[in-house]
Amino acid sequence: MKKIIGILGGMGPAATLDAMEKIIKNTPATCDQEHIPVIAISFPDIPDRTASILSGGESPLNKMLAALRILEAAGARCIIMPCNTAHYWYDELKSSTEIHFLNMIEITCNKIVSEGINNVAILATTGTIKAGLYQSRLEKENINFVIPDDIQQGIIMESILVYKSGNEERAYQLLKPVIYQLKNIGVEWFIMGCSEIPVILKRDSNKVEYIDATEELVRYAIAWSYLDGDDI
Amino acid sequence: MKKIIGILGGMGPAATLDAMEKIIKNTPATCDQEHIPVIAISFPDIPDRTASILSGGESPLNKMLAALRILEAAGARCIIMPCNTAHYWYDELKSSTEIHFLNMIEITCNKIVSEGINNVAILATTGTIKAGLYQSRLEKENINFVIPDDIQQGIIMESILVYKSGNEERAYQLLKPVIYQLKNIGVEWFIMGCSEIPVILKRDSNKVEYIDATEELVRYAIAWSYLDGDDI
Repeated sequence: MKKIIGILGGMGPAATLDAMEKIIKNTPATCDQEHIPVIAISFPDIPDRTASILSGGESPLNKMLAALRILEAAGARCIIMPCNTAHYWYDELKSSTEIHFLNMIEITCNKIVSEGINNVAILATTGTIKAGLYQSRLEKENINFVIPDDIQQGIIMESILVYKSGNEERAYQLLKPVIYQLKNIGVEWFIMGCSEIPVILKRDSNKVEYIDATEELVRYAIAWSYLDGDDI
Repeated sequence: MKKIIGILGGMGPAATLDAMEKIIKNTPATCDQEHIPVIAISFPDIPDRTASILSGGESPLNKMLAALRILEAAGARCIIMPCNTAHYWYDELKSSTEIHFLNMIEITCNKIVSEGINNVAILATTGTIKAGLYQSRLEKENINFVIPDDIQQGIIMESILVYKSGNEERAYQLLKPVIYQLKNIGVEWFIMGCSEIPVILKRDSNKVEYIDATEELVRYAIAWSYLDGDDI
């Protein structure tokens, strides 16, 4: 069997589904048997990541570690975690396992650097923004980036939560004006730096100005799965 | 944590995704944490089910059992298998485990009986049809059903395989005329008795004449997950 990709997911469940769909769509397969084996753990009760970062709510780490242990026991050969905010705990997760644990923030920033992308806004949870998960690397690479102002960030976070509550249309209607505002101040590119964002903006998925962190992560994982060895 | 639903999937990967999407859409949740935990094994290299039934190709049973063992070890409390044809091996799978293993064919037939549905055509793989998975129960209940003729069945099977090869549009264009032909001879209802069929016909999902076996299975699993105990 091809090497199994393990998904540490459920943050949220729709984002996990989006990652799985992107694995299928990016795999050149002509029948079932040519697709890549996947084990997806979707544990939506992992405590809220933004609440933990911002206000010291219950840490999600223990439940993420429990999911990681299941993926290890099940035979996963690399791990992807389609939740940007959860990467706040990436070092602790990675150091606890012998399995490849891909870093979606690093992979996405590598893409931005290698393609010479500039004037980019970060669309993410307030947790991801306050933790500076994207900013530190972009600063180091001298990439000009924009953080939404507090009002815009509040609306982005509301859009994400509204999506998670099941109101897809309202989530889209909240997010879209913020994107227009950011374009008006010179933003040329947008990092979809929360894994709900590509789902909220699915109807605009043909637009080139979006850098979809989930898509970048999945493409990297697929490339890894086609290598003979286990190292990339 | 709520009880975990285990998905024995990958037959094919898009059908597994469809089942997961239907779990999310049918769960009344207002935030991540209210969703149902799911572990999905998507092992697309499970040998072709129809080929094994029709021409004695490699049996998929051993690989299905291996996936089942992983779901048991991971803590799944009930198993769903969103592949109708794979239910040819249902008794062997069920008898090998202590965990609830829901039967999508039985659940779908129960729905047909309880709603008094009649004049129904079975849209399924040639393996499912030749094995009589749906027919035996429908006959027993005196429900008037139609099996597509050999030419129509060949086209249905081609549509399923074309979808699995990645050509969604062609799959739809193949399947739709067969449905019109069946309507012309008096068919009023259609069992989507292959888990790729609701994906192929996704654009028609608002039509009431379809009985989607995946949806019925998922709804049953969700109802089970809301019970206090472990028995339904």
